[in-house]
Amino acid sequence: MADLVIALQAILGPKGWLSGADAEPYRRDWLDRYGVAPLGVARPASTAEVAAVVNICREAGVVVIPQGGNTGLCGGAVADQANAVIVSLSRMTAIGEPDLDSGSIIVDAGVVLAALHETLEPHGLMFPMHLGAEGSARIGGLIGTNAGGSQAFRFGMMQDLVLGLEVVLPDGTVWDGLRAVQKDNAGYQLRKLFCGSEGTLGIVTRAVLRLYPTPKQQASALLVMSDFAAAVSFGAFLRGEAGEFLAGLEFFSDVGLTLALKHLPDLAYQLETRGDVYLLVEIASGSTRVPLDEILASTLEWGMEQGLVTDGALATSGAQRAQFWRLREEQPEGQRLEGEQLKHDISVPPGAIARFIEAGAKLCHDILPGVRINPFGHLGDGNIHYNLSPPEGHADFDGKGAAFAEALAALATGMGGSFAAEHGLGRAKIAMADRNRSSTERALMARLKRAFDPQGTMNPGVLVRTP
Amino acid sequence: MADLVIALQAILGPKGWLSGADAEPYRRDWLDRYGVAPLGVARPASTAEVAAVVNICREAGVVVIPQGGNTGLCGGAVADQANAVIVSLSRMTAIGEPDLDSGSIIVDAGVVLAALHETLEPHGLMFPMHLGAEGSARIGGLIGTNAGGSQAFRFGMMQDLVLGLEVVLPDGTVWDGLRAVQKDNAGYQLRKLFCGSEGTLGIVTRAVLRLYPTPKQQASALLVMSDFAAAVSFGAFLRGEAGEFLAGLEFFSDVGLTLALKHLPDLAYQLETRGDVYLLVEIASGSTRVPLDEILASTLEWGMEQGLVTDGALATSGAQRAQFWRLREEQPEGQRLEGEQLKHDISVPPGAIARFIEAGAKLCHDILPGVRINPFGHLGDGNIHYNLSPPEGHADFDGKGAAFAEALAALATGMGGSFAAEHGLGRAKIAMADRNRSSTERALMARLKRAFDPQGTMNPGVLVRTP
Repeated sequence: MADLVIALQAILGPKGWLSGADAEPYRRDWLDRYGVAPLGVARPASTAEVAAVVNICREAGVVVIPQGGNTGLCGGAVADQANAVIVSLSRMTAIGEPDLDSGSIIVDAGVVLAALHETLEPHGLMFPMHLGAEGSARIGGLIGTNAGGSQAFRFGMMQDLVLGLEVVLPDGTVWDGLRAVQKDNAGYQLRKLFCGSEGTLGIVTRAVLRLYPTPKQQASALLVMSDFAAAVSFGAFLRGEAGEFLAGLEFFSDVGLTLALKHLPDLAYQLETRGDVYLLVEIASGSTRVPLDEILASTLEWGMEQGLVTDGALATSGAQRAQFWRLREEQPEGQRLEGEQLKHDISVPPGAIARFIEAGAKLCHDILPGVRINPFGHLGDGNIHYNLSPPEGHADFDGKGAAFAEALAALATGMGGSFAAEHGLGRAKIAMADRNRSSTERALMARLKRAFDPQGTMNPGVLVRTP
Repeated sequence: MADLVIALQAILGPKGWLSGADAEPYRRDWLDRYGVAPLGVARPASTAEVAAVVNICREAGVVVIPQGGNTGLCGGAVADQANAVIVSLSRMTAIGEPDLDSGSIIVDAGVVLAALHETLEPHGLMFPMHLGAEGSARIGGLIGTNAGGSQAFRFGMMQDLVLGLEVVLPDGTVWDGLRAVQKDNAGYQLRKLFCGSEGTLGIVTRAVLRLYPTPKQQASALLVMSDFAAAVSFGAFLRGEAGEFLAGLEFFSDVGLTLALKHLPDLAYQLETRGDVYLLVEIASGSTRVPLDEILASTLEWGMEQGLVTDGALATSGAQRAQFWRLREEQPEGQRLEGEQLKHDISVPPGAIARFIEAGAKLCHDILPGVRINPFGHLGDGNIHYNLSPPEGHADFDGKGAAFAEALAALATGMGGSFAAEHGLGRAKIAMADRNRSSTERALMARLKRAFDPQGTMNPGVLVRTP
């Protein structure tokens, strides 16, 4: 291994190779559940350097693990063995000039999402991908995990926003697929396949992304819903009345609101009444001629007449809008500060959300009476972050973690949904996928993996097991 | 082969096996360029029958060729050898109940696109896929070719509209991927990979499709643009001002208008002046509170002030709107009636359309002076159907067909675009793909093909060559 490290250092230079204490920040995943110390962390400065690292490691039989901003929740970007090199693209952060007439931009895979947002702002363009980790998450990792976030129901997941890709393949060759068009049917949709492949088929080094014009106005409302069924009905109505404007359709529960208000003293809830479920609705338009406030108010009125909405307020200022959003965004933090928790990343058809919530609660309370259920997430695409806290006064889940996860995964699967909606499988959910998906599907994925990475040195043990 | 036919007949019954003259309608492709008589045409009535046919053929080493509505333009759905069975899903045409709250529906792959549109209409939902062949094209074929059409720039291609799939794999097993959620990151995005795989990785038998609410109002305009650069600039402006409403942004040229008016006597052009380029703009909204006409008129005014738009009219009735659309839709028919033609399915970044048109004209006129260039298509995604007619008074292209195709493919490739934008490769463009895409990319596709179809019996010779 000493030879390998010397060869890597020669290619990467002093800034490009971290080991020992310097490599420590890359060792563990964000939830501190996975990761052993690797040989070191390679920080290449170019696609050629990435390819060289991959080649050297492959020849030495050393595992390569691509890591983006290391904000993943399934342990897919850290090592499970010492004989591994983590490849971080944190030095590849170039952002091209946006193509204003085409609505696209080329970026290095190491670009942090928030930096891309900032770069685009003065151009009147946006990249419609928003998620909690955007201050740290890098484009390559977002592509690798096929990130979703709060606007996916309208603009799509990463796979829908990637026009072209450059990828260093497991054999060290570079695939230049940096086309900049939506319509490209010249063969298999490789660009889509790499999205969500979790670094197991290659290392994304650059991407051409699709951009959209920034809206010129927006309107936001915080609504109290009578129950989850009401939220589903109101969501379907909104899609029909304001679907083309919908920029946010987020929900959270009173369990989560209670936790957030308890642990974040600066958080404010300003409506007069509470309910079981809250909806954050945001609509936006590129035209200044659209009466957005009137449209939002009219849907709200309809919801009240129908008995779906029991209270609500339109944001009257940017500050109030920010307050509404913080109530949703602090859901994870409020629950984290309460102590032990279990996270589940579920999706079901949007119309089935209420049924899932009801059936899920029954399952969970059968497993552990009094367990506190805190579902929040994205109403438009049925993505429920179905998180649990122990019963009041309990410090933990009595070792029932796996039982919850399996019961909820089976429930979502049976409803045509997913137990790995937007966070992926990583190392955490391979066994769950093996149980909840057919052997035909899992075998197909293993064949695909072997076709791209016959030696099995590219992030093995993530997403799929190959014998 | 007699045994094979007897076995297939036993499974499929008398309606399910066509041979001789009965198989004739399935033999040739739509442009009558490809296809030899197969052993016969299997018309299974269920997924189990599809699987049985695939299994029997595989055991006999007989090639299987999936065929949808046979409207493809690249010869990907007909036989190139007698030792082949065409599998048509024309008897699998069940359409499920739409899920109104979720915006999705399950359909058999044999459903004709127009039939799906009709079924959805009374529910206030639409499947946003529109193309010339929609009266014949079937869902399975649309998935296999990853169809695009006129609304792709807004709602995406088939790959963006497919939530779940059921596929009979080349080894005869059935992959049940009939999930009904957008967010499903439990492994590789197989559903995306099958879109555009042209029947080479398996036979799609059922699909869960994403639906959208039908707009409650629309506004349409026909505009005369000063040139292609003006059309590009105006298109970019429209995306910013009315992007969320844009339901159509089609262009055609005066060459094509002239041909259409010449050959289709009932076609009417009602503006007072002509120009080099025409734009058909359609905007639509789910809200009745949006002043659509005002928004469209104001963009038109802006275009005139900027000198981009030289003439134009807003449709004042449904009949006038239909007239506008017919001018665009009859572009292929007008040119077909003129005689010999060459079709090229190009895409470039939308901002590069004018540059492509200009550079393409120079290339084409160098190859054959006076050749008539008739570009039309989809401004929003840069998809140009760049079709040629011989010079006035000439019956053909002096054997220059390949020269045009190669020059235009190289030009599009150099601009970050594609020479196979929405029609795919089929048998027609494999060599072109081998020349215009890297050996790395082509080799990756061949590996993928072998991983799914190691025996090479599923539509071989289409999309990619495997040794």
